[in-house]
Amino acid sequence: MKQSQLFTKTRKEAPKDEVSKNAQLLIRAGFIDKEMAGVYSFLPLGLRVLENIKNIIREELNAIGGQEMKMTTLQTKDVWEKTDRWREDLDDGIWFRTHLNNETELGLAFTHEEALTKIMTDHVSSYKDLPIYAYQFQTKFRNELRAKSGLLRGREFLMKDLYDFSLDEKQHKEFYEKMKGVYKNIFDKLGIGDRTYLTISNGGTFSKYSFEFQTLCDAGEDILVYDKEKGVAVNKDDFNDDVFADFNINKGDYNFIEEKSAEVGDIYTLGEKYAKAIGLTYKNEKGEEIPVYMGSYGIGVPRVMAVIAEIFSDEKGIIWPESVAPFKVHLLSLNQNEKAEEIYNKLNEEGIEVLLDDRDKKPGEKFADSDLIGIPYRIVVSSKSLEAGGVEFKKRNLEESEIISVDDLIGKLSE
Amino acid sequence: MKQSQLFTKTRKEAPKDEVSKNAQLLIRAGFIDKEMAGVYSFLPLGLRVLENIKNIIREELNAIGGQEMKMTTLQTKDVWEKTDRWREDLDDGIWFRTHLNNETELGLAFTHEEALTKIMTDHVSSYKDLPIYAYQFQTKFRNELRAKSGLLRGREFLMKDLYDFSLDEKQHKEFYEKMKGVYKNIFDKLGIGDRTYLTISNGGTFSKYSFEFQTLCDAGEDILVYDKEKGVAVNKDDFNDDVFADFNINKGDYNFIEEKSAEVGDIYTLGEKYAKAIGLTYKNEKGEEIPVYMGSYGIGVPRVMAVIAEIFSDEKGIIWPESVAPFKVHLLSLNQNEKAEEIYNKLNEEGIEVLLDDRDKKPGEKFADSDLIGIPYRIVVSSKSLEAGGVEFKKRNLEESEIISVDDLIGKLSE
Repeated sequence: MKQSQLFTKTRKEAPKDEVSKNAQLLIRAGFIDKEMAGVYSFLPLGLRVLENIKNIIREELNAIGGQEMKMTTLQTKDVWEKTDRWREDLDDGIWFRTHLNNETELGLAFTHEEALTKIMTDHVSSYKDLPIYAYQFQTKFRNELRAKSGLLRGREFLMKDLYDFSLDEKQHKEFYEKMKGVYKNIFDKLGIGDRTYLTISNGGTFSKYSFEFQTLCDAGEDILVYDKEKGVAVNKDDFNDDVFADFNINKGDYNFIEEKSAEVGDIYTLGEKYAKAIGLTYKNEKGEEIPVYMGSYGIGVPRVMAVIAEIFSDEKGIIWPESVAPFKVHLLSLNQNEKAEEIYNKLNEEGIEVLLDDRDKKPGEKFADSDLIGIPYRIVVSSKSLEAGGVEFKKRNLEESEIISVDDLIGKLSE
Repeated sequence: MKQSQLFTKTRKEAPKDEVSKNAQLLIRAGFIDKEMAGVYSFLPLGLRVLENIKNIIREELNAIGGQEMKMTTLQTKDVWEKTDRWREDLDDGIWFRTHLNNETELGLAFTHEEALTKIMTDHVSSYKDLPIYAYQFQTKFRNELRAKSGLLRGREFLMKDLYDFSLDEKQHKEFYEKMKGVYKNIFDKLGIGDRTYLTISNGGTFSKYSFEFQTLCDAGEDILVYDKEKGVAVNKDDFNDDVFADFNINKGDYNFIEEKSAEVGDIYTLGEKYAKAIGLTYKNEKGEEIPVYMGSYGIGVPRVMAVIAEIFSDEKGIIWPESVAPFKVHLLSLNQNEKAEEIYNKLNEEGIEVLLDDRDKKPGEKFADSDLIGIPYRIVVSSKSLEAGGVEFKKRNLEESEIISVDDLIGKLSE
């Protein structure tokens, strides 16, 4: 894409009411726009990052038999009353409520266990139908009291939620263990694997414990107690004798430290609660009606984007990991649009995604914008670089640059 | 994909409260699930069709410089009050309203002119910034009084909406004319081009006329007055002397007939109304502040899916055009799973999308399901077909089938 065609502009200051670093950076660089606290539009660059994150997740989930679908935002109360989650006071008033013109009360889904369990009653009847792994990328609406953390805590945000429908606890547990590995792969590919910990935490209603994936991050709302060497981590809220006993943790054997972290994913055992309440059963080989055993697996997509922006940034701007960057290469033309366009075409032909800064701007402005936007590789075409034999090549996260010939560029970018 | 892994099942009957043909077929075939009237979930097969339609639209819009983004559902009232569209009585109460826990009133966007115009005030300042073409695929919420037409009239539905931000009427008009061609290409590729007409209709607030794209369809809510030979069409609501005069139509020269039709797209001139109300201006070369001139261009994605299902179907089920079909090939194994899987792998290697019916079902059931689901090419592997020298090959829309060798299959599918 040519930057002269991109409608977004960078800005020196974020809006005054925006206090979070991730949103300040992403707004200044033109990735997002703030509609209200916790509610953000994704501008072209931001949407590209969001889609890259989705594709990494999608690929891993399809590989283990996940089936993508898309449920609805508008919800009628019947199925939620069965699980006692229609209540006004639920989670401090998490529901956004609305109504049809005929006064029928509706809610905006903040999660989809009830909706999907109900759908499955039309499609599951026999043990032969199970297991099923269904997932979606769908906007969740949560009426948060406070939303001051930018994309880290959204009132309207895109979530990947997968649900397993299993024959019994055993089949569910096998999948649950498999998902720990799948999530590890996902966070590795997203570039945050080395600072993301599988974390013991409270299990909520359905089981004593669940697991979260917590990423070390100063802006996070949680505190992680972890041993880096041994890779053992516990949410500070649950760091107690009960946990030590249940997980055979002898505190003396560990070097636990505390650090702020953000929850980027969670995996829950739901058991039979939803199936029993909503009537999702299957016939086993003996013809008995058995409730389906369930689990749920979430990742907040904009939250991952926020964590990346918080972690991978410096005083100049964002430093995107290559796997999620809006483009691989930022090609800056300093009054050399003809030569730059030649290189631009060549890179495009090779399938390398490149943003060409062909704008009529001063070099200093182009460099500053490039650092702020944070594309991994910066290539500068100037009369100086051409005299020196090629283009200036620099990684966003390194200080040094080098001159390389145009012919060597493709090879260099494939390293 | 293997059908044994697909969680959806076909069903003989649609829900009793579902009166529209498109929703009946799509529910029975397992493409969608009804949450409430006008609100449908997209199950795996349905999501595949939706994504195919989106990709056809996206390709055409990117080719003319469209920039994809994604705005928010939740809206605060300030910007909508400026255009006088926050009113409770607007379009018979089209707004769904909700509120934050602190009582701040919010609305669920039924369109996005206001939101995008406001965003553009941060990015447009000079004539050099224009024109801009921005679009999104985003869920719209419309509090329709009645919603009995399945996916033809949704209360929650995915819409492609593009907006042009132009220097003046002239630049806008040039783009507007170009978009007529773009829409024609889109509807051609979707397989409904030959029965879709560029239709003169009422222009609403901003200009005397606008154009709709109307597709001949018994389930449609409009009536099209058109001359098939000459390709001239007028919405019956606007078929009057005024139109004849303004478009130089001498009724005697035309052979107008009436037929029911569904509006699959519309293109509007918005003029300066939004820019003036919200303060979106640019500096021209003389340094004067000029309001931006706008237009909007919509396509309801599920409505297109509904129209296709209405038109391309028979008493047995749906007949998808190849461009939007969930798979290209439906491969039915009649107790020949080993041979079928061999063919399945071969087709996948060639990049041909195939649904393999490897389920433990009777042939009659497999044939009925295949006709209901409506994948364009059906290939049957049975002991009979293998004895005859290969597989049975049949197009969903034709009666006759033929036996062809497995080696000839790829060639046949590339015809």
